[in-house]
Amino acid sequence: MAAEIVNSKDGLDEDVIDPAFALHRGGKMAVQATVPVRDADELSLAYTPGVAKICNAIARQPELVADYTWKSQVVAVVTDGSAVLGLGDIGPEASLPVMEGKSILFKQFGGVDAFPVALDCRDTDEIVETVARLAPSFGGVNLEDIAAPRCFEIEAKLKERLDVPVFHDDQHGTAIVTLAALRNAALLTGRPLGELRTVVSGAGAAGFAIAKILVEAGIGDIVVCDRKGVVSADRDDLTDVKRELASFTNKEGRTGSLESAMNGADVFIGVSGGTVPEEAVATLAKDSFVFAMANPNPEIHPDVASKYAAVVATGRSDYPNQINNVLAFPGVFAGALQVRATDITEGMKLAAAEALAAVVSDELSAECVIPSPFDERVAPAVTAAVAAAARAEGVARR
Amino acid sequence: MAAEIVNSKDGLDEDVIDPAFALHRGGKMAVQATVPVRDADELSLAYTPGVAKICNAIARQPELVADYTWKSQVVAVVTDGSAVLGLGDIGPEASLPVMEGKSILFKQFGGVDAFPVALDCRDTDEIVETVARLAPSFGGVNLEDIAAPRCFEIEAKLKERLDVPVFHDDQHGTAIVTLAALRNAALLTGRPLGELRTVVSGAGAAGFAIAKILVEAGIGDIVVCDRKGVVSADRDDLTDVKRELASFTNKEGRTGSLESAMNGADVFIGVSGGTVPEEAVATLAKDSFVFAMANPNPEIHPDVASKYAAVVATGRSDYPNQINNVLAFPGVFAGALQVRATDITEGMKLAAAEALAAVVSDELSAECVIPSPFDERVAPAVTAAVAAAARAEGVARR
Repeated sequence: MAAEIVNSKDGLDEDVIDPAFALHRGGKMAVQATVPVRDADELSLAYTPGVAKICNAIARQPELVADYTWKSQVVAVVTDGSAVLGLGDIGPEASLPVMEGKSILFKQFGGVDAFPVALDCRDTDEIVETVARLAPSFGGVNLEDIAAPRCFEIEAKLKERLDVPVFHDDQHGTAIVTLAALRNAALLTGRPLGELRTVVSGAGAAGFAIAKILVEAGIGDIVVCDRKGVVSADRDDLTDVKRELASFTNKEGRTGSLESAMNGADVFIGVSGGTVPEEAVATLAKDSFVFAMANPNPEIHPDVASKYAAVVATGRSDYPNQINNVLAFPGVFAGALQVRATDITEGMKLAAAEALAAVVSDELSAECVIPSPFDERVAPAVTAAVAAAARAEGVARR
Repeated sequence: MAAEIVNSKDGLDEDVIDPAFALHRGGKMAVQATVPVRDADELSLAYTPGVAKICNAIARQPELVADYTWKSQVVAVVTDGSAVLGLGDIGPEASLPVMEGKSILFKQFGGVDAFPVALDCRDTDEIVETVARLAPSFGGVNLEDIAAPRCFEIEAKLKERLDVPVFHDDQHGTAIVTLAALRNAALLTGRPLGELRTVVSGAGAAGFAIAKILVEAGIGDIVVCDRKGVVSADRDDLTDVKRELASFTNKEGRTGSLESAMNGADVFIGVSGGTVPEEAVATLAKDSFVFAMANPNPEIHPDVASKYAAVVATGRSDYPNQINNVLAFPGVFAGALQVRATDITEGMKLAAAEALAAVVSDELSAECVIPSPFDERVAPAVTAAVAAAARAEGVARR
């Protein structure tokens, strides 16, 4: 409907009516020079003939590209537009407002330069090959809004092929922030992670990555559910990715529905977009945590969840404990780029979650298990932790 | 030598010694947000959930991408690093300082956003395919420093395939500025273009494009020379491109050496990088023009050329009449993007040359047949002329 109005009035009325359209007119980002080119002397340094010295130096010693160009501080935000926000497969051009938004969040929150690379191709190998051909141009790759399951294979192949950090934010950003909130909720209620039985609703990119990081962090028991219920090894309808998921989760060998899995569970994590009936929420264990992260409509409304759970988090900014990826990705890349990491390892992600949780460790409450996205302590803390972890894990180049 | 010093001292000594290294440290460009994201309200407009409205609108009406993202104002500066400045095939990473330099000149002189896309592939079709896959991300393609002859085929295929402007600056930027200077030199000495016999030394990207635009502009007679002499149809060693060149130049059917072709010629244009002996310069016709554009060493030193020619131009900033591409490409793209042109046509290039020449028409002299790169009248004049020509030629979308 909105779009029709835009069309009929050439955008002007809609701009007035809707502040989102007004704000987006002309885009949200620009390029700027960081050196002056105001006169012939300055031009002869920044461009020909002065620039030839830098080119020659890099041609002889390729590692100098990191010191003398923007490469080592710029991230490509790569998408094929196949799984954009909650909107689904809207294509590369319609995804651009999200990719621009992501790019400016990189800058605003992490001081990282980023630009959108929206690709008009869908084949896994074509996407991998295209990004690899572009690789001389950037120091990191943030994969964004690429549909599962090909997002997993694209990330794995690019990590294998490139010597710069590759990070699928829909997976790992979400996982890092979720783990941070869970750590603090456990701390607040005095329970070790190993004692928490956890149910994840949603077995896509985010669900997979959350399950993986929670297992690595030592969560006691975790089951992941898709639309057909618990992902268990005995199901014969599993994709390769879900078979892998079943292999490292569900150690009790549960089967059945999401609702049955929730009965007695300590933690509910929703990354599905579905709706969970209140009756099921009522069966959670005492002092449970409900992280209902679907946006804009959480799987369990926070007002309902609060009746049963000790800690409630959502993806929404108008309720406490917003699980927002912007708490993670700017600092993760800033830290990785700072030490010119060749990879983003599991250890770096765990360190990011720990640092993020620690930011609010002195002010913990049920309404504050995770910092606000605008807490200025966040990005420096995550950056430092990720850089240190990269060094510890041997993937730092300086 | 410089590079070794950089390495041994971690760049620091070199930074102090050489201002070009100091200026390039950390790169020359950055990304900036043009909208605020300082609080939750602003974040919810620029990113989720507000951004979803814009994505949906573009998904329904694809043309809105031009209004509500940066796509229509951003140019990809694409190279494979195979023919960088006078340095040759130094590869994509070593070419980045030039591509960044180009990007900031786009911004500084034309207000156009641009970012470097340095490709790690050399095959013509692979380059075309890669740029086509990236096409949702930008509003124009500036091809840069790609070796001949594949630069011709890449440009032709991309123009065919994409609905945004594609422009190989090494060809057309040079050609536009050369034609502008030649127009003014002819005006100054009171001769119509049709009476000028012209010799071009160099049959690569620039030589081809110069010959083409001069023929379109009505130059009387033109011969192009490569290392073996005049490119003539009866030679059996011509590449496809040179055969094409022979088909629309050399209407007198000349053969022989560059020197023999120069005898009695009115105009010498050098884009070869070779050296022309003074004896040959002395054989040019009375009131000749010498445009010796090889950088940093012109084919004919301007002090020598001035002894024989009425007008002398070079590529150097320390002599009068600098033939500098920055006089053309920022305004060409600014004009094309302004009207959302689907192409850059021959008519748009001719209009750019005419507008550029007209900037100094009231102050013409032998030392001023072309404006300074820092003349602030240039970009607006070229922009307006190119936009008007795009409309006249039916390639404007608004």
